[in-house]
Amino acid sequence: MTVAKEDVRTLAETARAASRALATIPSRQKDAAMLRMALHLRAAAPFILAANAEDVAAARKAGKNAAFIDRLLLDAQRLESMARAVEAVADLKDPVGEVTEQWTRPNGLQIRKVRLPLGVVLMIYESRPNVTSDAAALCLKSGNAVLLRGGSESARSNQAIAKALRQGLVEARLPENAIQVVPAGERESLLELLKLEGLIDLCIPRGGEGLIRFVAENARIPVVKHYKGVCHVYVHEAADLDMATRITVNAKASRPGVCNAAECLLVDRSVAERFLPKVGRVLVDKKVELRGCPTTVAVLSRAGIPVKPATEDDYGQEFLDLILAVRVVKDLDGALAHIARYGSEHTEAIVTGDAEVASRFTREVTASGVLWNASTRFNDGGELGLGAEIGISTSRLHAFGPMGLRELTSQKYVVHGSGQVR
Amino acid sequence: MTVAKEDVRTLAETARAASRALATIPSRQKDAAMLRMALHLRAAAPFILAANAEDVAAARKAGKNAAFIDRLLLDAQRLESMARAVEAVADLKDPVGEVTEQWTRPNGLQIRKVRLPLGVVLMIYESRPNVTSDAAALCLKSGNAVLLRGGSESARSNQAIAKALRQGLVEARLPENAIQVVPAGERESLLELLKLEGLIDLCIPRGGEGLIRFVAENARIPVVKHYKGVCHVYVHEAADLDMATRITVNAKASRPGVCNAAECLLVDRSVAERFLPKVGRVLVDKKVELRGCPTTVAVLSRAGIPVKPATEDDYGQEFLDLILAVRVVKDLDGALAHIARYGSEHTEAIVTGDAEVASRFTREVTASGVLWNASTRFNDGGELGLGAEIGISTSRLHAFGPMGLRELTSQKYVVHGSGQVR
Repeated sequence: MTVAKEDVRTLAETARAASRALATIPSRQKDAAMLRMALHLRAAAPFILAANAEDVAAARKAGKNAAFIDRLLLDAQRLESMARAVEAVADLKDPVGEVTEQWTRPNGLQIRKVRLPLGVVLMIYESRPNVTSDAAALCLKSGNAVLLRGGSESARSNQAIAKALRQGLVEARLPENAIQVVPAGERESLLELLKLEGLIDLCIPRGGEGLIRFVAENARIPVVKHYKGVCHVYVHEAADLDMATRITVNAKASRPGVCNAAECLLVDRSVAERFLPKVGRVLVDKKVELRGCPTTVAVLSRAGIPVKPATEDDYGQEFLDLILAVRVVKDLDGALAHIARYGSEHTEAIVTGDAEVASRFTREVTASGVLWNASTRFNDGGELGLGAEIGISTSRLHAFGPMGLRELTSQKYVVHGSGQVR
Repeated sequence: MTVAKEDVRTLAETARAASRALATIPSRQKDAAMLRMALHLRAAAPFILAANAEDVAAARKAGKNAAFIDRLLLDAQRLESMARAVEAVADLKDPVGEVTEQWTRPNGLQIRKVRLPLGVVLMIYESRPNVTSDAAALCLKSGNAVLLRGGSESARSNQAIAKALRQGLVEARLPENAIQVVPAGERESLLELLKLEGLIDLCIPRGGEGLIRFVAENARIPVVKHYKGVCHVYVHEAADLDMATRITVNAKASRPGVCNAAECLLVDRSVAERFLPKVGRVLVDKKVELRGCPTTVAVLSRAGIPVKPATEDDYGQEFLDLILAVRVVKDLDGALAHIARYGSEHTEAIVTGDAEVASRFTREVTASGVLWNASTRFNDGGELGLGAEIGISTSRLHAFGPMGLRELTSQKYVVHGSGQVR
């Protein structure tokens, strides 16, 4: 299907009109819509799963690999999780209208900072169809209209899901155009969307680096980027080495395909001899391939643990797989220098019993999440207690780290006077 | 002077290096630098004023008007104000390291949100030389390196000011490249700067609409825009008409050339006959030209007050001059519709004694500042109590309204655990 420029603009204009209506709608009406959306996701299960089966068949035919198919695939259980996630967002506190601060000026002016929606959010993503309902619910709850631009691989699934969601909107007497799917697959229509300054307030790209670069290079609308996570675990000489092992193994192997998984282990020289064989054995048991610096290779080889020599490319690499780069560093300064050079400002962790060292690490490392004695996997909206996330920003502007409902709002100053003039 | 592409990139790279050093420097060292900067501004007065005199002479020769020359002109008193403004920023609380929120998760993880600098800020502005020292002080206090790209009209003044500021940095043993002036006047070098994604974290353009559009259309780095202020005063039928007169006159006439000055007065039909002649007389005494809708023209003409008919172009116009558009509206809904159509989301005010009407107005109007019974002129960093501002954002992303020190920071999650894994 070809989408003309005018059609893309029309989509955005109808989203804008819907966003104006949404901005002041009471929470209970938005919540009611979300409950109806969840119901319709369940009721439409046969249609959604049939549409998804077509997408999956096409992907198989196109020779996509198993991981790709797994991300794309829906079943009854996954659909039920999507419906529950929408209900969970309905249960969260509405951020719109929240007074975040208030104070009174010497001249008697009462100042409040009040949250308001951003307006229209353009969500650009790749194969996972659950993003369609997750993003729609988060945007609706925060009073934003959303344009959903998923990948062409999941186009049928996304359309079927959006149809169910829109039925929920209509039944709650909310504007149906608050949730719209943009036809996928054409770079031209995406380019048009990215230029609609004044109609779209925020673009959130989630996906591969190529997609995100394309968006960043072509957008005239504000973009909050979700780049790769090249996350490190740094084991300091004062670490509890059992704890360090648990954290390293969890950070690398519990779910290697996600952005808060560790890609590189840094170990203080003074504990390398004791720690590397210990952690290496567990990692190898978990099928992790180790790529080490010369010292790492020497230590692990002596212990009979398989290891490859790391190349320069292995540092700063997001493997998204059961591969871990390992490097022995001199000390805290060495670790900080490595992270400043190779990190992606996503998530960094230190394991140490020394509070002063931890304090320097957490202060000096620039990353959206910095963890002391905990797995990198906790840099996640749900785990941090934000309720749900629309992504993890690696931009420092507007939002840094997991973006929840609050990060989908802005704040205005509301001033109450009694006739004050300057 | 021609600036090669490579030179612009080098400037930004040195700024980036300086920003890394600045990020963790203690407050007292930054404050000491600001006090030295203020001293050097005073000590360098003869040089700065001589450089400014050359800029002013060139502007006169180029036939610039009186308002332009006034914005450009420095004298001993203005320079002293600039030095005091730098000292005032030193007195503000350092936002870096501030813990804005903290909580504990059921699994024992302690979460804190901690402020950190943005990194490198590119400030693009036009003729006012005081922006050079104001922006430099605000960026330094918030731990950011700044690239200052002023107008070519004030190039000599800005270089002389920056020289003094950098002496202050050096004496406080801070990196001199934390404050750098970018050679002005070439669109090519500006274009280069706007593409330096990864080196510059935020661009703040302040100036005419043409400049801001150029930046918005060409930037690949994040931009927080400072567009025009088309601010309205809406006089509701339940207004105290004396208060409404004071507020309208102050909003329009106290300083017509600034962005939070009112450009349009909206008046409820039911009070137009009583209010318009009252406010009209005072405005005309203040030399304000009135451009009214047909009802306004009829009412004012009957009262013998000079008024021109407004054209469609007069609504939504930022006059920045002693001109006021006036329109009679049916009621609150009429005012809200006018503001939604013609407002610039900068500042909007209502005058009314009816709290419910005010509540609807403040909730439904999208603007960075919404005022009830107070002049639009209060939407200003100093007046709201933020201490000092680097501009007033009309973007909803990152910062909406006056940008103070906090808006020059981001926040990261710092998580303290005891070995937790997922």
